[in-house]
Amino acid sequence: MCTIETAEIGHYRIPLPSPIKDATHVIPDFEIVTLRLRDTDGAEGLGYTYTVGKGGVAIAALLSGEIADLVKDQDAAAPGATRAAVANMIHWGGRGGATTLALSALDMALWDLVGRHAQMPLWRILGGGDPVVDCYAGGIDLHMDVVELCEQADRFRAEGFRAIKMKLGRANLREDIERVAAMRAHLGDDFPLMGDVNMGWTLPQAVTACRALSEFRLVWVEEPTDPDDMVGHGRILREGGTPIAAGENLRSLAEFRMLIDAHGVSYPEPDVANCGGISEFMKIAHLAEANNLSITSHGMHDVTVHLLAACTKRSRLEVHGFSLDDYITHPLPVEDGAVRAPERPGHGVEFLWDKLARHSVR
Amino acid sequence: MCTIETAEIGHYRIPLPSPIKDATHVIPDFEIVTLRLRDTDGAEGLGYTYTVGKGGVAIAALLSGEIADLVKDQDAAAPGATRAAVANMIHWGGRGGATTLALSALDMALWDLVGRHAQMPLWRILGGGDPVVDCYAGGIDLHMDVVELCEQADRFRAEGFRAIKMKLGRANLREDIERVAAMRAHLGDDFPLMGDVNMGWTLPQAVTACRALSEFRLVWVEEPTDPDDMVGHGRILREGGTPIAAGENLRSLAEFRMLIDAHGVSYPEPDVANCGGISEFMKIAHLAEANNLSITSHGMHDVTVHLLAACTKRSRLEVHGFSLDDYITHPLPVEDGAVRAPERPGHGVEFLWDKLARHSVR
Repeated sequence: MCTIETAEIGHYRIPLPSPIKDATHVIPDFEIVTLRLRDTDGAEGLGYTYTVGKGGVAIAALLSGEIADLVKDQDAAAPGATRAAVANMIHWGGRGGATTLALSALDMALWDLVGRHAQMPLWRILGGGDPVVDCYAGGIDLHMDVVELCEQADRFRAEGFRAIKMKLGRANLREDIERVAAMRAHLGDDFPLMGDVNMGWTLPQAVTACRALSEFRLVWVEEPTDPDDMVGHGRILREGGTPIAAGENLRSLAEFRMLIDAHGVSYPEPDVANCGGISEFMKIAHLAEANNLSITSHGMHDVTVHLLAACTKRSRLEVHGFSLDDYITHPLPVEDGAVRAPERPGHGVEFLWDKLARHSVR
Repeated sequence: MCTIETAEIGHYRIPLPSPIKDATHVIPDFEIVTLRLRDTDGAEGLGYTYTVGKGGVAIAALLSGEIADLVKDQDAAAPGATRAAVANMIHWGGRGGATTLALSALDMALWDLVGRHAQMPLWRILGGGDPVVDCYAGGIDLHMDVVELCEQADRFRAEGFRAIKMKLGRANLREDIERVAAMRAHLGDDFPLMGDVNMGWTLPQAVTACRALSEFRLVWVEEPTDPDDMVGHGRILREGGTPIAAGENLRSLAEFRMLIDAHGVSYPEPDVANCGGISEFMKIAHLAEANNLSITSHGMHDVTVHLLAACTKRSRLEVHGFSLDDYITHPLPVEDGAVRAPERPGHGVEFLWDKLARHSVR
């Protein structure tokens, strides 16, 4: 049996060109934590996760101090079983937080190994037939004024995007309505436009806002309120009359089940870097399909493109504002509103390690 | 305003006299992670959390690498606000895991500071009127045979206990039934006896087992299955006909709300070291009271005794198998089935730091 031999961990802080803002964060930089597994056949699998600027130290400590040891001598060809075994050993305190982010990186590295051994890209291993996935540009733009918003939208279109998400959750609803109205007028009636509240509203605010925004036919309103309020999401969707995307702050299949059972989401939106990894993302996608819902994704588009390519019932892939394009060998080109999952083995993401090393936290 | 000046973190691995076993763990030692906050008035507040042996490295890293810095200059007299501010800054990836364990230690240290400034014990600050709290002995004894189980029960009774919890979840249900029958015969018909499955059963196994065990009138069956299956807990309680305790693996007020809304628990059982701290424990207790349920507790009895003393609707306090008695200045004596919350300011727990230092992980 081919087993895991070594694990190498990296922790980097990547500055953003300028600080970005949503309804609950001001973000000057983000963190990447990497895990490189090498197996007894000499193959290497890469996993990584990220934070919005804080907490990477705990993920790196867990990977270095526990998981590197626990994963040694485990089956290198069985992501589900190996991930579950490690998760069981470190589960105390429950799923979530730094623990699940570390497990997400582990699971991704294990799947990458499977792909490299098979010499197949992940999207084929996961059963996908068509690697071309519709995408959208995720603007992190709550700090912009209306003119800047429309200019950003023009840039996105020039880059090849055919769908755009803007931030919502300004200090009062009137501002949000004016901004959405301006974008709708600028982009035209049929352009796919989404809005993202980043948990900024209370339950009654969310219902009121969704009703007020419904005339602008947003594809969805995202994270309208506290992600823990599953029942509340059901009310927002039912009473607000606008489709809801949610899930970037959920961190298990069980949480997605509860949100879906509460009829609280139109577009489940797991993040492969914090939902538990590729294994869990695919289970969530299949649960969504069983419930007649199309899945979308949050963050990490370089990897997630494989996963959406393998989903028969899918919405658009988010191309995220935390771009790694400057630090990877093959950034994903956007063409006519879509990206194409690569044919390279595994997820096919390879970092420019020397360039990344300049931002090492250690 | 009195603010936080310094934070000192410790990480210790405490060996158990002999390895203990439940349905999902074999535990040779446990970890304690400590946080000592000093404020600008020179007062010191102590918080701590624990693991069942793995993951402490991430909690310590988060406390040292992020929280120590974030809490500096924050209000030392406002646990709720200061904890929420810090939690908001490190929430990425969701609640839970190492993140919530670190926040639990922070919250406890902040409440300890409040008590020390007020020169009042926590149970009084939280509104309690009677410091005497009924308790039970939590045996971690799945590895014992029936004779050893009964001998352990005799020791517990000699130590002053008037209620006992035993482990369930042996390889087959027949063994569990025989063990419970032996204990019931040994202890008498009216002795309060509980059973703890540590998530060991599937949903149908749990229903079957609770039905089979109902003739032995257990006070409760604890953690019968996966803690994430809230709806499943509702079925086990309804169809199994035995009261259910659950909550040691939940890590937020929102999760307790979902479990209670699913009618899945008779005795909510938060652990102050992993549910988010004293602030969150008390909110969970009040939610339980609003739902006509009596709260119990998991672990950390030296601190939790204050919290149950402040709850008007309470069941028994667990006196946990991970005892810190050898490492603290004032172990809690058990007298006639109860313990008394101390009159010392704050939670009143003080470590024997020199003795603890022998087990330092650093």
